[in-house]
Amino acid sequence: MTPFPPPLSGSAQDETPELRPRFDENGLIAAIAQDAGTGEVLMLAWMNAEALQKTIETGRATYWSRSRGALWVKGETSGHTQEVIELRVDCDQDAVLLKVRQTGGACHTHRESCFYRRIEGGVLSFTGKAD
Amino acid sequence: MTPFPPPLSGSAQDETPELRPRFDENGLIAAIAQDAGTGEVLMLAWMNAEALQKTIETGRATYWSRSRGALWVKGETSGHTQEVIELRVDCDQDAVLLKVRQTGGACHTHRESCFYRRIEGGVLSFTGKAD
Repeated sequence: MTPFPPPLSGSAQDETPELRPRFDENGLIAAIAQDAGTGEVLMLAWMNAEALQKTIETGRATYWSRSRGALWVKGETSGHTQEVIELRVDCDQDAVLLKVRQTGGACHTHRESCFYRRIEGGVLSFTGKAD
Repeated sequence: MTPFPPPLSGSAQDETPELRPRFDENGLIAAIAQDAGTGEVLMLAWMNAEALQKTIETGRATYWSRSRGALWVKGETSGHTQEVIELRVDCDQDAVLLKVRQTGGACHTHRESCFYRRIEGGVLSFTGKAD
């Protein structure tokens, strides 16, 4: 079903030059989107094999919506697209990092980033746009 | 068991000033560590309620090791600690972002970041330290 070869074991997975994503029991890997210009972390989402394949092929960030149970081409309805400038994978290949050129806000609340609240002690403080 | 109040529904969760982490079916939330100085994304790990609580209390990044099934104070054995400069939570509170001062390499391969390979087409290219 997945177009990718299976993960290797141990350090072979860390050092392979082959893309061998390690999908979890739900068939997903974590995907971090980071603004390619500012370095701001924008959001964390999920990809299944198809979403990852489409992201690689099209250069447009495509995720798996867990709430809708459907492929989610970022910005398809909102217009807030993410053009992928660079795509990276982590050591054990269960997470990818997308450096993107973001159009509009990345967050569904229309904020620039989903990480707009600081944890300070046990409470949250909202950060301004300048943060 | 968790010291945190439960998540709210819908947009109330996005706008609450209360920390109400949404742990998954395994009791975990995703945790992104980012270098507070350079903005480089260092790693993606996981926290259970205890790890999140300890991170808040101690200012030292503490995760849940899924492979070992144990609390993991980052750097406790390697010395590669993460001092938390700022902690943020995302809109639906199922992910946190740690801006950290990293000592040594964040990755277990001793690299600075776990994201040391670029996906270029279907293959991976290793990035140098300067990246």
